[in-house]
Amino acid sequence: MIKKGNESWFRMLFIWRGSVLPKLLPRLILLLLLSIGIVFFKGTLFNYKVPLNPTPFTLFGIALALFLGFRNNASYDRFWEARKLWGALLNDTRSLVRQSITLTSYSAQSEEVISFVRYLTALVYALKHQLRNTDASADLQQRLPQELAARINATLYKPIMILKELGCWIKEAKLQGKMDSIQQTAMDENLNKLSDIIGGCERLASTPIPYTYSILLHRTVYLYCLMLPFGFVDSLGWFTPLVVVFIAYTFVALEAIADEIEDPFGTEANDLALNAMSISIETTLLEMVEQPLPLQPTSKNNIID
Amino acid sequence: MIKKGNESWFRMLFIWRGSVLPKLLPRLILLLLLSIGIVFFKGTLFNYKVPLNPTPFTLFGIALALFLGFRNNASYDRFWEARKLWGALLNDTRSLVRQSITLTSYSAQSEEVISFVRYLTALVYALKHQLRNTDASADLQQRLPQELAARINATLYKPIMILKELGCWIKEAKLQGKMDSIQQTAMDENLNKLSDIIGGCERLASTPIPYTYSILLHRTVYLYCLMLPFGFVDSLGWFTPLVVVFIAYTFVALEAIADEIEDPFGTEANDLALNAMSISIETTLLEMVEQPLPLQPTSKNNIID
Amino acid sequence: MIKKGNESWFRMLFIWRGSVLPKLLPRLILLLLLSIGIVFFKGTLFNYKVPLNPTPFTLFGIALALFLGFRNNASYDRFWEARKLWGALLNDTRSLVRQSITLTSYSAQSEEVISFVRYLTALVYALKHQLRNTDASADLQQRLPQELAARINATLYKPIMILKELGCWIKEAKLQGKMDSIQQTAMDENLNKLSDIIGGCERLASTPIPYTYSILLHRTVYLYCLMLPFGFVDSLGWFTPLVVVFIAYTFVALEAIADEIEDPFGTEANDLALNAMSISIETTLLEMVEQPLPLQPTSKNNIID
Amino acid sequence: MIKKGNESWFRMLFIWRGSVLPKLLPRLILLLLLSIGIVFFKGTLFNYKVPLNPTPFTLFGIALALFLGFRNNASYDRFWEARKLWGALLNDTRSLVRQSITLTSYSAQSEEVISFVRYLTALVYALKHQLRNTDASADLQQRLPQELAARINATLYKPIMILKELGCWIKEAKLQGKMDSIQQTAMDENLNKLSDIIGGCERLASTPIPYTYSILLHRTVYLYCLMLPFGFVDSLGWFTPLVVVFIAYTFVALEAIADEIEDPFGTEANDLALNAMSISIETTLLEMVEQPLPLQPTSKNNIID
Amino acid sequence: MIKKGNESWFRMLFIWRGSVLPKLLPRLILLLLLSIGIVFFKGTLFNYKVPLNPTPFTLFGIALALFLGFRNNASYDRFWEARKLWGALLNDTRSLVRQSITLTSYSAQSEEVISFVRYLTALVYALKHQLRNTDASADLQQRLPQELAARINATLYKPIMILKELGCWIKEAKLQGKMDSIQQTAMDENLNKLSDIIGGCERLASTPIPYTYSILLHRTVYLYCLMLPFGFVDSLGWFTPLVVVFIAYTFVALEAIADEIEDPFGTEANDLALNAMSISIETTLLEMVEQPLPLQPTSKNNIID
Repeated sequence: MIKKGNESWFRMLFIWRGSVLPKLLPRLILLLLLSIGIVFFKGTLFNYKVPLNPTPFTLFGIALALFLGFRNNASYDRFWEARKLWGALLNDTRSLVRQSITLTSYSAQSEEVISFVRYLTALVYALKHQLRNTDASADLQQRLPQELAARINATLYKPIMILKELGCWIKEAKLQGKMDSIQQTAMDENLNKLSDIIGGCERLASTPIPYTYSILLHRTVYLYCLMLPFGFVDSLGWFTPLVVVFIAYTFVALEAIADEIEDPFGTEANDLALNAMSISIETTLLEMVEQPLPLQPTSKNNIID
Repeated sequence: MIKKGNESWFRMLFIWRGSVLPKLLPRLILLLLLSIGIVFFKGTLFNYKVPLNPTPFTLFGIALALFLGFRNNASYDRFWEARKLWGALLNDTRSLVRQSITLTSYSAQSEEVISFVRYLTALVYALKHQLRNTDASADLQQRLPQELAARINATLYKPIMILKELGCWIKEAKLQGKMDSIQQTAMDENLNKLSDIIGGCERLASTPIPYTYSILLHRTVYLYCLMLPFGFVDSLGWFTPLVVVFIAYTFVALEAIADEIEDPFGTEANDLALNAMSISIETTLLEMVEQPLPLQPTSKNNIID
Repeated sequence: MIKKGNESWFRMLFIWRGSVLPKLLPRLILLLLLSIGIVFFKGTLFNYKVPLNPTPFTLFGIALALFLGFRNNASYDRFWEARKLWGALLNDTRSLVRQSITLTSYSAQSEEVISFVRYLTALVYALKHQLRNTDASADLQQRLPQELAARINATLYKPIMILKELGCWIKEAKLQGKMDSIQQTAMDENLNKLSDIIGGCERLASTPIPYTYSILLHRTVYLYCLMLPFGFVDSLGWFTPLVVVFIAYTFVALEAIADEIEDPFGTEANDLALNAMSISIETTLLEMVEQPLPLQPTSKNNIID
Repeated sequence: MIKKGNESWFRMLFIWRGSVLPKLLPRLILLLLLSIGIVFFKGTLFNYKVPLNPTPFTLFGIALALFLGFRNNASYDRFWEARKLWGALLNDTRSLVRQSITLTSYSAQSEEVISFVRYLTALVYALKHQLRNTDASADLQQRLPQELAARINATLYKPIMILKELGCWIKEAKLQGKMDSIQQTAMDENLNKLSDIIGGCERLASTPIPYTYSILLHRTVYLYCLMLPFGFVDSLGWFTPLVVVFIAYTFVALEAIADEIEDPFGTEANDLALNAMSISIETTLLEMVEQPLPLQPTSKNNIID
Repeated sequence: MIKKGNESWFRMLFIWRGSVLPKLLPRLILLLLLSIGIVFFKGTLFNYKVPLNPTPFTLFGIALALFLGFRNNASYDRFWEARKLWGALLNDTRSLVRQSITLTSYSAQSEEVISFVRYLTALVYALKHQLRNTDASADLQQRLPQELAARINATLYKPIMILKELGCWIKEAKLQGKMDSIQQTAMDENLNKLSDIIGGCERLASTPIPYTYSILLHRTVYLYCLMLPFGFVDSLGWFTPLVVVFIAYTFVALEAIADEIEDPFGTEANDLALNAMSISIETTLLEMVEQPLPLQPTSKNNIID
């Protein structure tokens, strides 16, 4: 995620960071050169004057903008749903920590409560690693008893296996007379919510927007931009390359951003800062049980991962 | 579902798999030939010059794009709701397995818990078969006691009948003193959710977007594309066929995709991979009770069903 | 509701059933004749040449398409919400039947459970009749004890009165020691949901989209279509009637469909099949308690009511 | 709220009731006169020919239609959310009445239950008066014990104070052994929902769409309509006034309706019929405890308030 | 938040307050001067006639309006979600106060209940300060016991730490026999909701709309407005500056409002009135336990913060 700065409206026009411009530059320069060539040859290909004019481009450009709008909406909804799920992860783990103190007869600094908090943080890190396809073993070993960490690490669906252990912790507390079954089911209700959160993230990660949509729009946007200079060469003359690159920049950039945030758990600049969020959750959970806090995340070039 | 690849922006322009192009090709070639004919005869029909020009096509093309946008949105919402329901099926069955271990006094490897898990997987497969109108008997026999499998197989609404059996399993556990009525109702709450999921899938499968919408849009899109060459023949000359086929490709393809994902439980390329999802659910549930996992699904041409 | 067929893309172009064309035909023929007259007189009225051209029609046509899009969305949302409510009715009554067996100590074939199921089906039919303003007495008498059927039939809000009876059934079961108050409140929770479903249907039935919207759009669409031939007569000549009727067909048809599904509980071709859904619900509930199933609904001309 | 009639498509074109036309007529006549003046002077102001043409109006008109669409959507969402809240008020009070009979050992005609129902109806009327800034005292005195009515009437947030009394009624019932704490919390859950409904209405009433949006759109719509005749005078001649007033009617009317339903608790023609809904709720609640029903609301000119 | 006045449609055209005009004036004047310069030089730059015409501006203007519509929607959704969260804060704290009286055996004026209410108001103020990055210490000291206020003030996530204290208050009440564990978990359920509300606000505050979107749209809007005069100078002559500034005003203002309400917890004119809402919540909570009410908020220039 890119941190929002406090730039004035004027400085925002020339900002480099957070823009997709660097990534798209090669393609736009290609288009620029092509447009210049087309203007130079006055829109003829091998002595054949290409008979395009702005009318079909107006019609089709607006249609294309509508379809891009649809794609943007769908991608942004995915991004925002992913963010909501990680927000719910924060809320729900906080609720569980509070309940482990107030619905049981354990005290806030007891061995058991602290171990419960460690399980929760391990779950959060395991989920992050699952969504990013990275190795969870180091983070698990730091937060779980060694034997358990090894056992969890060997499974396919690690966060859910840790969730089961949380359920067992509660069952144990009940067996030891630290809570009754009413309090147990109240905590279990929050485990259900955790299950929904984990599954919701898996759903977003495993099911993209139907691939055919992406292909179709990608193709249409690029083909449209390619044909654009032929349509405007007669009326705009040497301004054609500038206008074409300006229009193409907006269309291609929107398509690129939509493609980037469609999979919000990745590590591209506009993706969610799963790393920073994991540390935040760990911080607030440990603060609730008055334990030393972890190091806060730092941003590089205003980008937090 | 088509698996998303890692193609560069350039290679995505020429990809074949996952595109609806193959399916639409005959229609587009027809249109191409027609356009060439119209250009050849300079837009005259039996010596009568058809007096169409681009203006009404601009007006109507944008209106049509708006209506297509509406159809696309409605279809995509159905697709995504279906995916959410199957995601909820995963979350909820996982919660029930966790509860069968932690809210009862059964151990995770007990006979009873494993039979409970088998009932759940049978329910998942029964739902898949109901939604795809395929034969459930083999999958039921593999997961349920023979007598029960036969009884369920003879009913109309199989998943709901298995859900009732799950309720009976819980009632039995309570009668045997393995849980109290507080824990029973906590598990029953998740059975309510399963009932909502099953019914939600049935709703999507039985109620399409009002058929009149589909008919109206289908007709309008094709009629529009058919008249398009007459409108552009005078201004675009021999480029008319190319422009017409390009515009038609986008409109017709969008309509075709919307039509495909409107019924997300089918077996077309962009439909949901119910088969793979069923295996995933079975895998994670069996992993929770430390049973041997089923074979993982494989994809053919990057399409998983 | 119109059942979706398996027509090919080509046959869908000429389908008659499920189209609103029959209903709109007289209006479109009127417009056709008018357009022909306008072309014949070359756009003059009493020797005064009407100075309209396509430009304002382009501007306004697109604006109109946007507003129609808004109306369509709002109407479709109502249609879909209504369908969701009837879906929830199915899910919730199924859950209640399951609970009447598994949360009580009654057996599935006991007198009491079967009478509970009859109350639920009576509620479903009573709701259907309330929403369609039809007479519920026959359906109530078939499913309820005679005295109760008569008492319910005399009330204003029949489904809610039956819901109260369901609550009394549960109270009675508790008084007889067949369930404790935990199980009672678990079932009562589902009665709350039924109350929300009934009230949700009443809300949709009693509150249309603000009437002023409908009036405004209706007027604008028809006035627009009426003026259209004047705008295109100079540039399109004898093709004006064809183009005008084509554009008008799409606009007027969209408005007509939106108007039809705005009130989804009616009996028009695109409305919800309340009748068939009531029978479905009764079928699945009776199947759960192993009672003989009712006759399945049949469709006439592929339309189910 | 305006009751929807059964007018044919043709009669709907000339309907007066339910249209915003009467309210907008003076403004439209002003614009008509202005347009006629502009045509008369052929678009010159003090001998200076205003050089406007349709092109910028096309561009800007469509943009304006898009922004109006956004405003319409936001206003309609508020209207519909308000309606949903009052629907939930109906559902929830019905559920509470049912519970006061079936979760307690009171009978349906007992003194206590009837007084509970009176509290609920008082809450509904208090909410109506709060939202419309009218005097609640008469309606409170009719439904509450005199001393309590006076006490409530002196508070700022009357519905919430009555809600507290409902909670006290339940507490009292529990103290008297008429319910246990499980049944108490089940009813308390519905009081939570009532709290959400009351607060939701207060939120809609106190927070309009950001005022800057309204100002900006209002200004743009009127300025646009004002400049419109200059743009079309050259091409449309004496048809300019007609076309301008037609376009302006649609834009201005949409803005006016959006403004009206943005605050759905008011007393304008398209606002919610809070009065009629309050009477409906009272009717169904009293019917549930077999008390005499109140007079049904009547509509004046098909408008119910 | 700007209070909505009762201005007539005519007076609304000239209102200053609540408009973003003052803020944008310098930029618009700059554009005006530039346009005048361009008209004066008839669109030539250093003797080179810039060959722009309205066509690409029509195409791109509509596309831009669509993208602005997307941005507006996303921003408004954030604004409205923030408002809903603060509405839920009101509802939920009211519910907790009601429960502290009716689910415990404390009386409404007891020491304990009043201290519970103080904790809740402290939480509300702590949340406001966290969201606005202001100093919470004064407000905490006023509402909490001195020792606790100091302890909370030293933590990172103050509202959540106060939430834990509320949980401890409930645990204490149970230990003292003032409620049983059923009533405890009913209140705990509302603490879960508070956790969701706090976390939801933190989510909105920490995750803006992907920055790349903002940058892209900002740039496109300004570049578009800058090029606009070149496109219209030939056809509109000395009316170019007026038309350009009018179009630019709408586009730039929409972008500015979207940018303002995107972060709804700020202190700009259109942001949420967190201050006034905090006082409202405190008022209603204190009214419920019959304590003296705080001073009501006042508005300056009809702006409440």
